[in-house]
Amino acid sequence: MTVPQANGGVVVNGSAQVVKGPAPLDASKTVVTLAENLKAVPPAEELIFGQTMTDHMVSVTYHPVTGWSNPEIKPYANISLDPACSIFQYSTSVFEGMKAYVGPDGKPRLFRPEMNMQRMKRSVARIALPAFDVDELLKLIKKLVAVESRWIPNVKGHSLYVRPTIIGTRPSFGVRASDHAILYVICSPTGPYFRTGPKPVSLYAVGEQVRSWPGGTGEFKLSLNYAPTFWPQQLAAEKGYDQCLWLLGEDQHITEAGAMNFFVVVKRDDGDLDVFTPPLDGTILPGLTRASVLRLTVAHGETTTLPNLAHSLKLHTSERRITMVDLFSWNDAGKLAEIFLVGTAAVVAGVGRVGFEGRELDAGAMGPVAKALYERLTDIQEGKVEFEGWCVHVDDA
Amino acid sequence: MTVPQANGGVVVNGSAQVVKGPAPLDASKTVVTLAENLKAVPPAEELIFGQTMTDHMVSVTYHPVTGWSNPEIKPYANISLDPACSIFQYSTSVFEGMKAYVGPDGKPRLFRPEMNMQRMKRSVARIALPAFDVDELLKLIKKLVAVESRWIPNVKGHSLYVRPTIIGTRPSFGVRASDHAILYVICSPTGPYFRTGPKPVSLYAVGEQVRSWPGGTGEFKLSLNYAPTFWPQQLAAEKGYDQCLWLLGEDQHITEAGAMNFFVVVKRDDGDLDVFTPPLDGTILPGLTRASVLRLTVAHGETTTLPNLAHSLKLHTSERRITMVDLFSWNDAGKLAEIFLVGTAAVVAGVGRVGFEGRELDAGAMGPVAKALYERLTDIQEGKVEFEGWCVHVDDA
Repeated sequence: MTVPQANGGVVVNGSAQVVKGPAPLDASKTVVTLAENLKAVPPAEELIFGQTMTDHMVSVTYHPVTGWSNPEIKPYANISLDPACSIFQYSTSVFEGMKAYVGPDGKPRLFRPEMNMQRMKRSVARIALPAFDVDELLKLIKKLVAVESRWIPNVKGHSLYVRPTIIGTRPSFGVRASDHAILYVICSPTGPYFRTGPKPVSLYAVGEQVRSWPGGTGEFKLSLNYAPTFWPQQLAAEKGYDQCLWLLGEDQHITEAGAMNFFVVVKRDDGDLDVFTPPLDGTILPGLTRASVLRLTVAHGETTTLPNLAHSLKLHTSERRITMVDLFSWNDAGKLAEIFLVGTAAVVAGVGRVGFEGRELDAGAMGPVAKALYERLTDIQEGKVEFEGWCVHVDDA
Repeated sequence: MTVPQANGGVVVNGSAQVVKGPAPLDASKTVVTLAENLKAVPPAEELIFGQTMTDHMVSVTYHPVTGWSNPEIKPYANISLDPACSIFQYSTSVFEGMKAYVGPDGKPRLFRPEMNMQRMKRSVARIALPAFDVDELLKLIKKLVAVESRWIPNVKGHSLYVRPTIIGTRPSFGVRASDHAILYVICSPTGPYFRTGPKPVSLYAVGEQVRSWPGGTGEFKLSLNYAPTFWPQQLAAEKGYDQCLWLLGEDQHITEAGAMNFFVVVKRDDGDLDVFTPPLDGTILPGLTRASVLRLTVAHGETTTLPNLAHSLKLHTSERRITMVDLFSWNDAGKLAEIFLVGTAAVVAGVGRVGFEGRELDAGAMGPVAKALYERLTDIQEGKVEFEGWCVHVDDA
């Protein structure tokens, strides 16, 4: 138990230790309460993304005087909040998307989790939520994944999706930062994004509504980046497309597609391939899968060979602005080899049709570069291939 | 009780009436449950904006099959939600800010509430939350204000702040519109924004972070417009300023200040005054107070005379782009008469210092135009002056 003291310090766990200021997040103080009745784990082939939740969750609260409470791992439960809370009124919320896998050794592991933690730290600062030691959060996540390991589907392309979330809970209408918060982590077992094999995604290019802007929040993983995309997404669906391709500026350059990072593969005159993705200019989410794809395309032909690609095929990787004029010019010139999207949920998804101002191009199905990246990434994530220490075991918490 | 039927219709209130599709919002079905123990109403002079909540709230839920539940007026209570809900993960939330007053007739009234309802309708559509008949919501608000009428402070400059809110409650990580929702209304008695008289607000001009942009959501009353302002607001406070003055674009034009609309009064060579505010170009919240100020400045010298202003003084009102260069040029030329901000919370607030790129101007204290507008608006709101039917009695629900 943590008791606020008149001097602003706290007495932790009833001991005589007096700490000055709010208590930091401390995973070593975790209290685990297991559910009395565990849910039945559905068959892997029936899992739909984000709909089935596991038995337990991590929960920690922040109070401006006492600081972070002792973390709990407890049965999955509703959150009860005052209707005036900051999260309801001012959208103070940050989340991360991570995946846990079972390796051939039977042990659970996470994919580059320290990148999620660093991004979460930046996102939390951007909307002035209470800061915390992200290394301690990672320890909590590892503890939770260890508790929930029976939920990780041991099937190719399946994983346990892990969603750390922090919400502001200051119960007042005053328009200012939330000095109260709840940090929680919930998990959902999930199958591959496309159950029927890699069906190409169709995109509708949207410039009238804009996902992000210089000086905005597009480079942070804030919940508030998502709600504004739902209505344009419905308009795209009415036109027969799966997702929005987000444009920005008078030059109509591409930022993202749906909730994923965008890549295009262009044939070069020398027989090699260019692999382009928009640069991290403040309007683009710095995706883990994006960073991993960039590293793998650079490593191909050097320290590794991607599946079913010639070792001698050079992938010239570049972060550069890509406009709709570029895309249609490459297509008209017969140089457009592949378009694909990357993100934690789908890993890599091939793009087919792209609609824009009454025109349409068709980039075909999932191409050899996208397929190679999907295969190699999932092999790394599932512990079948080791690459630069990207997989982290959860039993070192 | 509302029971879902296999045919997609619903049986409402146990009657045999079968309605096709989800039930609409219907204020006539409201069930009122009064609190057993009422709170003590604090003295008016102790009220702080948004911290004291009244005894009751309106609550209605939306389910995609059954539609809107029968509305409840019930004791103020926490909301219990699945941690995977859309509001926590994707910031699906819309609110409105309104005020109720007691007139000299002792009757409670609302200020131009139909404008809040129309704006809420547009905001809800922008993030694809379930639609509802806003006339029915207004009836619910009137019912609630009537129940809570003892909470309305009958003191000059005081009011009951009313906050209708709708949040998306779809309990899944799928990145799409929320087809579940809770619509609720809570109330907080409030005093004048500035307890010590009209202290001028200081502003720090911010271009590095932007509040809104073309194709974004700045013209809608979405919760998600607020969280990104908290960190810049803290930076402004560290520099000794009260609020951010939000700039946009290479010409550094002004959009809003803090969470209020921006006005500037400029002396003309003919002895009249120009009153400028940025136009509703998609990046500006269409404030009720903004619209009311524009109407009053046009009406001055025509159908009315504002307090302590000469009837013959013409206020040349114009919605036009205002850049930082404009502001400093007017100041340097001795033409800058007043800067003021308008919004529901403060009504009208005078601006003093404005800091920008190492320079500073001082527009003085609250000027005669701002004072006249504050006096006239509060007199209209408090039922002391009738103007164009802006006040609506709540007993016609």
